[in-house]
Amino acid sequence: MSNLFGRNFRVMTFGESHGPALGVVIDGLPAGLRLPLELIQADLDRRRPGLSPYVSPRQEPDEAEILSGLAAEGRTNGAPLALLIRNRDARGRDYETRKFRPGHSDWPYFIKYGLRPQPGGGRSSGRETVARVAAGAVARIMLSPLGLRARAYAVAVGRVKAESPDPDFAETDPLRFADRDLAPRAHQEVETAMSEGDSVGAVVEVRVTGVPAGWGEPVFGKLEAALGGAFFSIGAVRAVEFGEGLAMSAQRGSEANDPLGPEGPITNRHGGIMGGLSTGLPIVARLHVRPTPSIAREQRSVTVDGQPTTISTSGRHDPCLAPRLAPVAEAMALITLADFHLEPNRHYVAINQSVEA
Amino acid sequence: MSNLFGRNFRVMTFGESHGPALGVVIDGLPAGLRLPLELIQADLDRRRPGLSPYVSPRQEPDEAEILSGLAAEGRTNGAPLALLIRNRDARGRDYETRKFRPGHSDWPYFIKYGLRPQPGGGRSSGRETVARVAAGAVARIMLSPLGLRARAYAVAVGRVKAESPDPDFAETDPLRFADRDLAPRAHQEVETAMSEGDSVGAVVEVRVTGVPAGWGEPVFGKLEAALGGAFFSIGAVRAVEFGEGLAMSAQRGSEANDPLGPEGPITNRHGGIMGGLSTGLPIVARLHVRPTPSIAREQRSVTVDGQPTTISTSGRHDPCLAPRLAPVAEAMALITLADFHLEPNRHYVAINQSVEA
Amino acid sequence: MSNLFGRNFRVMTFGESHGPALGVVIDGLPAGLRLPLELIQADLDRRRPGLSPYVSPRQEPDEAEILSGLAAEGRTNGAPLALLIRNRDARGRDYETRKFRPGHSDWPYFIKYGLRPQPGGGRSSGRETVARVAAGAVARIMLSPLGLRARAYAVAVGRVKAESPDPDFAETDPLRFADRDLAPRAHQEVETAMSEGDSVGAVVEVRVTGVPAGWGEPVFGKLEAALGGAFFSIGAVRAVEFGEGLAMSAQRGSEANDPLGPEGPITNRHGGIMGGLSTGLPIVARLHVRPTPSIAREQRSVTVDGQPTTISTSGRHDPCLAPRLAPVAEAMALITLADFHLEPNRHYVAINQSVEA
Amino acid sequence: MSNLFGRNFRVMTFGESHGPALGVVIDGLPAGLRLPLELIQADLDRRRPGLSPYVSPRQEPDEAEILSGLAAEGRTNGAPLALLIRNRDARGRDYETRKFRPGHSDWPYFIKYGLRPQPGGGRSSGRETVARVAAGAVARIMLSPLGLRARAYAVAVGRVKAESPDPDFAETDPLRFADRDLAPRAHQEVETAMSEGDSVGAVVEVRVTGVPAGWGEPVFGKLEAALGGAFFSIGAVRAVEFGEGLAMSAQRGSEANDPLGPEGPITNRHGGIMGGLSTGLPIVARLHVRPTPSIAREQRSVTVDGQPTTISTSGRHDPCLAPRLAPVAEAMALITLADFHLEPNRHYVAINQSVEA
Repeated sequence: MSNLFGRNFRVMTFGESHGPALGVVIDGLPAGLRLPLELIQADLDRRRPGLSPYVSPRQEPDEAEILSGLAAEGRTNGAPLALLIRNRDARGRDYETRKFRPGHSDWPYFIKYGLRPQPGGGRSSGRETVARVAAGAVARIMLSPLGLRARAYAVAVGRVKAESPDPDFAETDPLRFADRDLAPRAHQEVETAMSEGDSVGAVVEVRVTGVPAGWGEPVFGKLEAALGGAFFSIGAVRAVEFGEGLAMSAQRGSEANDPLGPEGPITNRHGGIMGGLSTGLPIVARLHVRPTPSIAREQRSVTVDGQPTTISTSGRHDPCLAPRLAPVAEAMALITLADFHLEPNRHYVAINQSVEA
Repeated sequence: MSNLFGRNFRVMTFGESHGPALGVVIDGLPAGLRLPLELIQADLDRRRPGLSPYVSPRQEPDEAEILSGLAAEGRTNGAPLALLIRNRDARGRDYETRKFRPGHSDWPYFIKYGLRPQPGGGRSSGRETVARVAAGAVARIMLSPLGLRARAYAVAVGRVKAESPDPDFAETDPLRFADRDLAPRAHQEVETAMSEGDSVGAVVEVRVTGVPAGWGEPVFGKLEAALGGAFFSIGAVRAVEFGEGLAMSAQRGSEANDPLGPEGPITNRHGGIMGGLSTGLPIVARLHVRPTPSIAREQRSVTVDGQPTTISTSGRHDPCLAPRLAPVAEAMALITLADFHLEPNRHYVAINQSVEA
Repeated sequence: MSNLFGRNFRVMTFGESHGPALGVVIDGLPAGLRLPLELIQADLDRRRPGLSPYVSPRQEPDEAEILSGLAAEGRTNGAPLALLIRNRDARGRDYETRKFRPGHSDWPYFIKYGLRPQPGGGRSSGRETVARVAAGAVARIMLSPLGLRARAYAVAVGRVKAESPDPDFAETDPLRFADRDLAPRAHQEVETAMSEGDSVGAVVEVRVTGVPAGWGEPVFGKLEAALGGAFFSIGAVRAVEFGEGLAMSAQRGSEANDPLGPEGPITNRHGGIMGGLSTGLPIVARLHVRPTPSIAREQRSVTVDGQPTTISTSGRHDPCLAPRLAPVAEAMALITLADFHLEPNRHYVAINQSVEA
Repeated sequence: MSNLFGRNFRVMTFGESHGPALGVVIDGLPAGLRLPLELIQADLDRRRPGLSPYVSPRQEPDEAEILSGLAAEGRTNGAPLALLIRNRDARGRDYETRKFRPGHSDWPYFIKYGLRPQPGGGRSSGRETVARVAAGAVARIMLSPLGLRARAYAVAVGRVKAESPDPDFAETDPLRFADRDLAPRAHQEVETAMSEGDSVGAVVEVRVTGVPAGWGEPVFGKLEAALGGAFFSIGAVRAVEFGEGLAMSAQRGSEANDPLGPEGPITNRHGGIMGGLSTGLPIVARLHVRPTPSIAREQRSVTVDGQPTTISTSGRHDPCLAPRLAPVAEAMALITLADFHLEPNRHYVAINQSVEA
C-alpha cells in the first residue's frame, strides 16, 4: 500500500473500518502554527456518520486526540503532528466476509494481498477518509491566513442537477446539494433509490479561492496533475474535470482561451489553472462520483472459494456518497495546496552573484 | 519544476522547445532487457511533427541517441538509461516573446519564475513530450512480454464523435480518429477551423489490455490516482474519466456494479480498476482535450510590461492536438504501469516463520 | 522536520519526550506476516530505561499498542501498521527551559524553529528512538525467515576497549559491553565519571549476518550510504566506519583487497559491502558515540534571552549511551535492510522478448 | 540502481566509464541564476585525469555541454538543467572482462545484475563522479552568494599525516595534500607504492564555511545523516567522522561539549553540526579512503565461470584516490547543502491567524 501523500506537507494515514482507531501523522509543518482543536473537530463533524437519514447510521463521535507536535502554548513545534481518532462503534462481526461484494475492493484485494474480505472493507472503507479530513483541517488552518478558502458541495445528485449552485445552502442541506429550489427533488431521488434497495451517484464540485498565482510544479507536478491524482485517490470518483473541463473538448480555441489583462486572465474558463500553474482565479474542479456499491438489492457474486452466489450487502451504508465525500474532496484539495505552499520559491531573483570557488 | 515521474521506474525528462536537445533518463530498469532502438524510434515517429496537414510543419527527425545504460550486447545493464533527441529545426527567433499568449503558460510562468515568455513556450511546449514518448517506448518493451498492450486514439474531434471506435483504423488516420465512416467529417471539422484561423478540441481514449489483476497501491497510489495524475500532466487535458466514468454519476448502484464470477468481474463498467486496483480487464480512460490555444485569430492580451495589446499566435502549431497527444497518453499510461510492475509483491504468503532475535 | 525513513518499508515516527505518546506507522508491509507482539515487546525492553544503575531511572513500561494493520488472525493485512507507546512517566515540569543546554539541540532548534527549549528536548530526546526500535522489531520479524540476524554491542566504553568481543555476553551486561574480562573496568570507567558528575563515550559495533549478496542500490543508494545515513540519524553518533574502516586509509591496496573465490570474497576486510552491494559476508559497522551531553558539572551557557549563565543539567540521564543506543543501532540497520529487501529485483533475466507495439 | 540524489535540488546522474557520455540533470533550480560555464569547467578540471604522475593518464577534456535549462541571457529558467560530458578516450577493449577484480564491484554486480564485468567497471567506475562534480559546481554557484565556501583536501596519504593542514597549499599539490612541509614525504609514499605495483589510502577532510545555523531536518534528515550518506556514496570511502569524531568516543562529556555564548557555540568540537542542525560554525568532516583496489600486483581471483585464477589489474588507474576524490567530496557536500537551502522555512512565526473555514 501507499498511504503517504505529499512531498513537503507529508501526510501518512492509517486505520481500518473496524479496527481500534484511525489516525494521521503530518510531517513537515512549520513551527508556531496555532491549531485550535475545535476547528479540526468542526471539519470532522462535517463528514461524521449518523447525522441524517441520508448517511450511514453508524455512531461515531470522531473525536481527535493530538499525540505529538504541539508545544505547551498550543502551537506547533515543528515536530510531526499525530492525530488519533478511536473507533467507537466498530462491529466487525456484522460483516459477511465469505463473499466478495461487487463494486468493492474485496476481490482485487484478495488477488493482491491474498486476504479474504476484511470487515466493512478494512482499509478500503470510506471510514479511512476521516484521517484525511483531520489532515485537511490542519492544512486549512495553515492556509487560512493567506485568505485561501475551500468548499465542496453536490451539483448533481442522481439525475437532479443544480442550476445555480449556492455553496452556503449546501452546508445546511443533508445531501450537501447546492441548489435550494431543487433540493426537494434531490432528496426524492435518494429516497426513491433507498426504498428500492438501491443507491445514486452524484457530482461534487470543489471550489478554492485565494490561491496565489504561480503554484504548481510543471511538468509532472502540474496543479491539475496533483489535484487530479488527489481526487482520484478518493474511492468512487470516476471522473474529474477542471474549469469548463469536458465541454472544452467540443469547443474552438477562440472560445476556450481566456483573454489576458494586466492582472492575468480576465475570464476563468480554465478553472484557475493554466500551464499547470494557478492563475489567482478560483480553482474549480468537478468530481463525478459513482453510486454507493453497497446496496440491498441482490447481485451476482462468488464466495471466497469461487462458488457462484448472490449477495445483498448488509451493514450500514450511505445511499449517496455526496454529503460525506464533499468534505473529503475539500480535504484533499487543501492537503495538496498545503504541499505546494511549502515548495521552494523558484522566482527569478537577479542576485548580485560574486561567485568565488 | 518537477520533472521526475515515478517511484521505481523513475523518469527524469529535460529539454525545451527551441533549446539544443530534449532527453530523458530512466533509473531503476532491471538488467538484461533487450532494447531495440527501432522500436523506440517507431514510437517517436508516431508523435513526430511535419507528417500530415493536421500537425505542425516543424521538421524534426526525432532520432534518439542512447548515451548510457546498455551493455555491449544491446541489453540494459542496470545503469540509468539516457536518451537524447537533438532539436534540428529550432527557430527561437521566430517567436514573439514580448506578449503573453492566452491559454498558454506564458503569464503564469512569468509570475512564478519571473521570466518573459520563452520561445515556443520553452519547457512548457508540447515538444517536451517527445522525451515522454521515448520513456514510454522503453516501458512498452519492458511490459510487452507480460502481454500488456496500450493504444490511444481519438474518439471525438471537435463535435464529431466516433460511433464504433476502431483503434486499428486510427493508426492510419492523420487525425488518429477511430471511426472510418466518420473520419471525413472529422477532417472537415479541423479544416473548417483551420480556414477560420481557429482550432478544435478532442477526446482521446486510452485502452490498455493485459494488465494483471492487483496492480495499484491504495490508498493514495490507487491506479486511477496514478494514471489520472499522469494524464493530467499532459498539457491541454481538462478532464479524465475511467470506465463508464461521467455517466456513472447519474446511475443507480444496481446499474453501476459489475457482477462477479470466479475469475473476477464479468462486465467492465469500472474500466479495469476497482478499489484502486487493476482487475485484469482492459483499463479504459478518456482524456478530454482542449482546443490548441495557439490560434491565428486575434485575441486580447497584454505585453510583458502590462500594456493591453492583441495577439495572433504565429509559429508552427497543430490545429487539433489529438493525433500527437494520443502517443503521449499511451506513453504516460505505460510509464505509470511500468512503475507498478516494479512495486514489491505484497501478497500474503504464509511463511513458516521461525523468528529468532 | 523529516521523520520519514525508507522508500519501500516506509517508517514515519512521531512523539516527544514529555508528550502524550510516541509511535510509528509502517507503510509498505507485505500481507500475511505473523507479528507476535511479544517479539516487539522484547526489543522494546532491550532499550527501556530504569533497568540498571547505568541508565536513566525514568520508569516507562514502553508497552506497544497496535492500532492498525493486523487482520483477525494476527497477521499483517497489507495496510499501514501503526504502533503506539504511551508516555507514563513524563515530567515536563522538571525541566529547565530558560537555558540552552550545551551539546544539545536546544540552541540550533531555537534558531531553526524559534522555540525555547522543549522539556527534555522534546522531539530531539533519545526517547524518540523507542519508535525506531518498534519499527526495527517489525523489520527483524520480516527478515528473520531469510536467516538474517542483527546484533549491536559496545566494543569500547570510555577508554576501555573490548579485546575479543562476545555479543552474547554483551546482552547480559548492564553496559552491553562485549568483553567479559574487561567488563569490570568498563563499569568502573562509568562509575568514576558518574561520581564526578560526568559522562563517557563509547564505540558500538553492529554486526548483521545472513544478508544475501547483491543488496544495495548504486550509486547513491550504496549500502554504506544507506546504512551510514541511518546510523548518523541517531543522536550522539559522530563517526561511522565499515569493515576495517579507518585502518584502511593507512593500508596498501594489496593489504586491503579481499581475494575472491568461487563463492565471492574469501576474507571480510570490506565488512560485507563491496561496490555498494552486500557480499553475503557479515556486515560490520562501528559507531563512535560521544559522551552524553547532559552532565551534572557546571558549564557555560546562555539563557533564552541571550544572557550568560551556567548550567548543570538536571533531569534523568544515561551516563553512557552505549547500552541503550545499541538496540537503536540494530533497529536502524534492520529498517534499512528491510527497505532493500523490498527493492525490485534487477537481475538480468534473458526474457524471450517478442515485442509487439 | 538509484542514481537520484536529493529532494529539492534533485540530481540524476548517468553514464559509464567506457560508454558514449556522462551527464547529469538537475531538477528544482530556481530561475534567474547566472551560470558561468567557466566556473563549472573549473571544477571539472580539478578532478580531471591525466594531469599529474599521481593520477590516471586517461586523456579526457571533460568539457560540459548545457542541453537544457538556460534562458537566452545565460541564466537558469527554472527548467531542468542538463549537462553532458562526452567520453573522448574510452577504450572498452583494453579491459579484461572475464575475471572479477578483487576490491571492485565486479563480483557483487554479477550477483545482482547477472552481468559479466563491464569495461572499466561501467557505471561503478570513478569516472561516474564527473557528473557529480558538474552538479556540485552548480550548487556552489547557487550557494556562493550566501558566503558559503567548500574545500576538500588530503590530511593523510598512506601513513603520512598532515600536521597543520593548509587547504590553499593543497590546491597546488598534485596529491592535494594539505601540508607543504610533509608533502615530499607524501609524494614518496605514493611513489614507493607505485614502484611496487601497489596503491595507498588517504584521509580527505571537507570543510564548509558560511553555512547558516539551522540547516538540517531531524530526525532522519539530520545534517550528519544527509552528509554522511552523501560521503559514503563515494566509492572507496570506508569511514566518515564529523568534528572531533572518533576521538569523542574516548572523551568525557565535560570535554566534548561546546560551551554556549549569545551567538551559539563558542568552540567547534561538534564540527558545525549539533542536534542534527548546522550551528553556523565551519562544518568539518573527514573521509577515510581505502587504497585504490586496482593494482598491478598479482592477486587471487576467479573467472566469470568460477575458475580460480590470478589477476593483475591493467588499465589506467590512480595510485592514490585523494587528489581526485577531494573535488567529489566537495561536490557531494555542496549538493547536499543545496538541497537543504531549498527546504521550506519552518521557523515559528506568530501569524495573526484569523481562521475561518
